Amino acid sequence: MNENMESAKQSIRDVLDFPKKGIVFKDITTLLKEHKHLATVADHIYDYYKDKGITKVVGLESRGFILGGLFAYKLDAGFVPIRKPGKLPYGVFSEKYTLEYGFDEIQIHKDALNNEDIVLLHDDLLATGGTAAASIDLINNFNVQETYVNFLIELDFLNGRDRLPQNHEIYSLFHF
Amino acid sequence: MNENMESAKQSIRDVLDFPKKGIVFKDITTLLKEHKHLATVADHIYDYYKDKGITKVVGLESRGFILGGLFAYKLDAGFVPIRKPGKLPYGVFSEKYTLEYGFDEIQIHKDALNNEDIVLLHDDLLATGGTAAASIDLINNFNVQETYVNFLIELDFLNGRDRLPQNHEIYSLFHF
Repeated sequence: MNENMESAKQSIRDVLDFPKKGIVFKDITTLLKEHKHLATVADHIYDYYKDKGITKVVGLESRGFILGGLFAYKLDAGFVPIRKPGKLPYGVFSEKYTLEYGFDEIQIHKDALNNEDIVLLHDDLLATGGTAAASIDLINNFNVQETYVNFLIELDFLNGRDRLPQNHEIYSLFHF
Repeated sequence: MNENMESAKQSIRDVLDFPKKGIVFKDITTLLKEHKHLATVADHIYDYYKDKGITKVVGLESRGFILGGLFAYKLDAGFVPIRKPGKLPYGVFSEKYTLEYGFDEIQIHKDALNNEDIVLLHDDLLATGGTAAASIDLINNFNVQETYVNFLIELDFLNGRDRLPQNHEIYSLFHF
């Protein structure tokens, strides 16, 4: 990892006991607010995917929208949001997934993708992998050509990667 | 308005009775998913602000993140999110504002901006202006040099512009 990338990684702030006691939250706002760090990570992830023929970048609400829109622009692709229920106004596919207590649900527009698309799914963080796995299930409704999966940060000790299907390439920029 | 811009504007989908009966919702997902439209609007707004010395782009959760991150990247600026309560992990400034029934609240990190910043506040839509006015109040905590205000879409018949302070330049790309 070069000096700029190391500096970008170190700009991520640990916040103790957020959102609840015992959790160390990785706060990326301290990275995003410095242009040099934003550009370092965006250029690097762009370089990684630039020759893969990506046609759509799918970003997860909300933090996955911040770099997702930027990647879509740079990769000559369109941008597609995956959102919480009640947010997308048109016909949707829905996917429920279990949390520690209860469940959550995410949605994608039924006209968001097609079977010629090569997709880059992006979120800021891979933790336990529940949202990412449900997102891949949503994308599978469209029989796309390929789905690449990218995270800015992966929390290795939570083994979220093991919860995702093995037939998609997963690339995370920073590991903790 | 040139042909590409007219085509981008026409790609915005009207969804009737969303989120409730009688509302015609402007759905920008049909614009964002086509790279040519995404690039047309992003390049145009970038051109508009490129010589203003913007140092931070402040995007409103959630749809303001999609182009906000992209503008920050292109303008050589940092990106700062304004979010709903409970989402930002560090010390925050908060602002409440009234809705048709009840109130809502938004927050910004206390270390997000400083008094040397030139800010571009971006959201996808100016409707009644409540969220935008509260966002400007949040930014005013930092005594920044200047705050420019940008929307992808302005709903002229709601007169949201009249609710915003008059000492900031407001630019909306599409008017309905």
